Amino acid sequence: MKLATCKDGSRDGQLLVVSRDLGTAHYATGVADKLQQVLDDWGFLSPQLQDLYEQLNAGRARHAFAFDPVQCMAPLPRAYQWADSSAYGNPVALMRRAGNAEVPESADSEPLMYQGGSDDFIGPCDDVLVPGEDMGIDFAAELAVITGDVKMGTSPEQALDGIRLLMIANGVSLRNLVPAELAKGLGFFQSKPATAFGPVAVTPDELGDAWEHGRVHLVVQSTWNGRRVGMCEAGPEMRFHFGQLIAHAARTRRLRAGSIIGSGAVSNQGVERDGRTEWPKGYSCIAEKRCIETIQDGAPSTEFMQYGDTIRIEVKGRDGASVFGAIEQRIAAPDGA
Amino acid sequence: MKLATCKDGSRDGQLLVVSRDLGTAHYATGVADKLQQVLDDWGFLSPQLQDLYEQLNAGRARHAFAFDPVQCMAPLPRAYQWADSSAYGNPVALMRRAGNAEVPESADSEPLMYQGGSDDFIGPCDDVLVPGEDMGIDFAAELAVITGDVKMGTSPEQALDGIRLLMIANGVSLRNLVPAELAKGLGFFQSKPATAFGPVAVTPDELGDAWEHGRVHLVVQSTWNGRRVGMCEAGPEMRFHFGQLIAHAARTRRLRAGSIIGSGAVSNQGVERDGRTEWPKGYSCIAEKRCIETIQDGAPSTEFMQYGDTIRIEVKGRDGASVFGAIEQRIAAPDGA
Repeated sequence: MKLATCKDGSRDGQLLVVSRDLGTAHYATGVADKLQQVLDDWGFLSPQLQDLYEQLNAGRARHAFAFDPVQCMAPLPRAYQWADSSAYGNPVALMRRAGNAEVPESADSEPLMYQGGSDDFIGPCDDVLVPGEDMGIDFAAELAVITGDVKMGTSPEQALDGIRLLMIANGVSLRNLVPAELAKGLGFFQSKPATAFGPVAVTPDELGDAWEHGRVHLVVQSTWNGRRVGMCEAGPEMRFHFGQLIAHAARTRRLRAGSIIGSGAVSNQGVERDGRTEWPKGYSCIAEKRCIETIQDGAPSTEFMQYGDTIRIEVKGRDGASVFGAIEQRIAAPDGA
Repeated sequence: MKLATCKDGSRDGQLLVVSRDLGTAHYATGVADKLQQVLDDWGFLSPQLQDLYEQLNAGRARHAFAFDPVQCMAPLPRAYQWADSSAYGNPVALMRRAGNAEVPESADSEPLMYQGGSDDFIGPCDDVLVPGEDMGIDFAAELAVITGDVKMGTSPEQALDGIRLLMIANGVSLRNLVPAELAKGLGFFQSKPATAFGPVAVTPDELGDAWEHGRVHLVVQSTWNGRRVGMCEAGPEMRFHFGQLIAHAARTRRLRAGSIIGSGAVSNQGVERDGRTEWPKGYSCIAEKRCIETIQDGAPSTEFMQYGDTIRIEVKGRDGASVFGAIEQRIAAPDGA
């Protein structure tokens, strides 16, 4: 089933059921107004939404209308938890090779994870507002899951059962603020502003065989200013699958329904060609591209994003159709300048 | 006005208005069911709660009942944001003197702040469940504010206007997990499990003159296993007041209504006596006591908390009456062992 949240002037928007082909939508009003309500009472409410979803796909839903991602908020416009990770091995390897960060050995045996802000997510087609163009504005094409209730000390296997919905995300970073924040020792805060999510959250069964043991075996496409820069395989190189990420988050506390766990930028390792390492799949964040340039050429040459830049993130299913809809947004100044 | 949230089996509980003397309470049902609702629409709903509060204080509320903190959840049982800080100068000075942490110079000019988990807060009299007794279990007696909507780039002065409610908190830490997490560079996660809040959230006017320009000029009392260990002045030594903390959090993003910002452990600097530094006001967290012991005696001698230990945190107003009610809880294993 596919769910979205439509802007209606309220903080949490209005829950929509969206057809598999993303062509039509239907208000879920008879079942629930808000996605958090459904997550709070998943066992009771989700079968009712599933019924509506099947009617919609069969063309039998009575008040269906054309689905418009521009009218969407993030599926959860605000959430009680957003924990983002660095679940791919390549970024860690790149950082070590580029020599521009101290990466501890523990990064190989357990996930790197940080707590992000979750009070204000950005809609899939809304502007990303950044107060300074010189802050090192970066996108990150990521996958994320929304969980149900997860008990403290869950195993990675049990944690897989707690996954309710999958999404794509644009994990915005302000890279030039990172060094000073990390020097303070407490992780990111100002360098990780509001995060954007794709228009549609989908249950894992929507991915069919491409959802395999906590990994999404599909390609994440990133298009920056109209130029395709990333076609990254999300499955095989995800070192820690979503069950492991959730278990890491739940080691010393339970997680409550509606917690969102992110993968970090989807990333593939380089291949050797004529004595030089190349990354033919491209990149899902600019910081990675700059790391690659440093390794290849001694210094980064790609600049971070500027006001007016656009970023498009999308994942196609094995049938070639968009799974989550596309994130398609522009970087802008807060005052609209 | 004083507000609390009563357990009713739901995730968000039932909003109560509580009398100034904490003696009686009244359901806010006619106005709002949940505190987040009130924060979302403060201008419209809070005057109605204020009316009920005044009736309650005058003994004229029709269905008042005895207020019982044991029946309370945290005032916001779950929130969209919890950002905790280290707003007092003394801990930074202590860490430098004890030589057991690298504290950057920037800690003197801007707040140390980290994003905490907010999906699951602990009620004031509920057990603190920790999966390992050897994790270095620590309390922290803190103050916290709940904000309304705060715009990106707010000034500290403007930010003061965004403060809706004040609370006390027990910022639980698992100190033995801290070094490995900080080595990974992304801040706390597993070392900061669920946080507890006092039974009652109060509007700043409840503090009278003790609320002065974003600082609370009252004493925070901490009682560990029945022994008074801290009588710390919360006002004069708060290096960054709550307006500054909020402005720091809002530098690169807006904050949405219901965001909670914490002060970190309330802490007072030492005084020189006969060539030895002493800390007569005691401590608001064990890590600080251990730092003091390291400075005085070369090594820490106070152990962290064990299962069965109790902690009580309370703040008395200038009239000697409890302002927020007391946090009074026990450390326990998750399985009830």
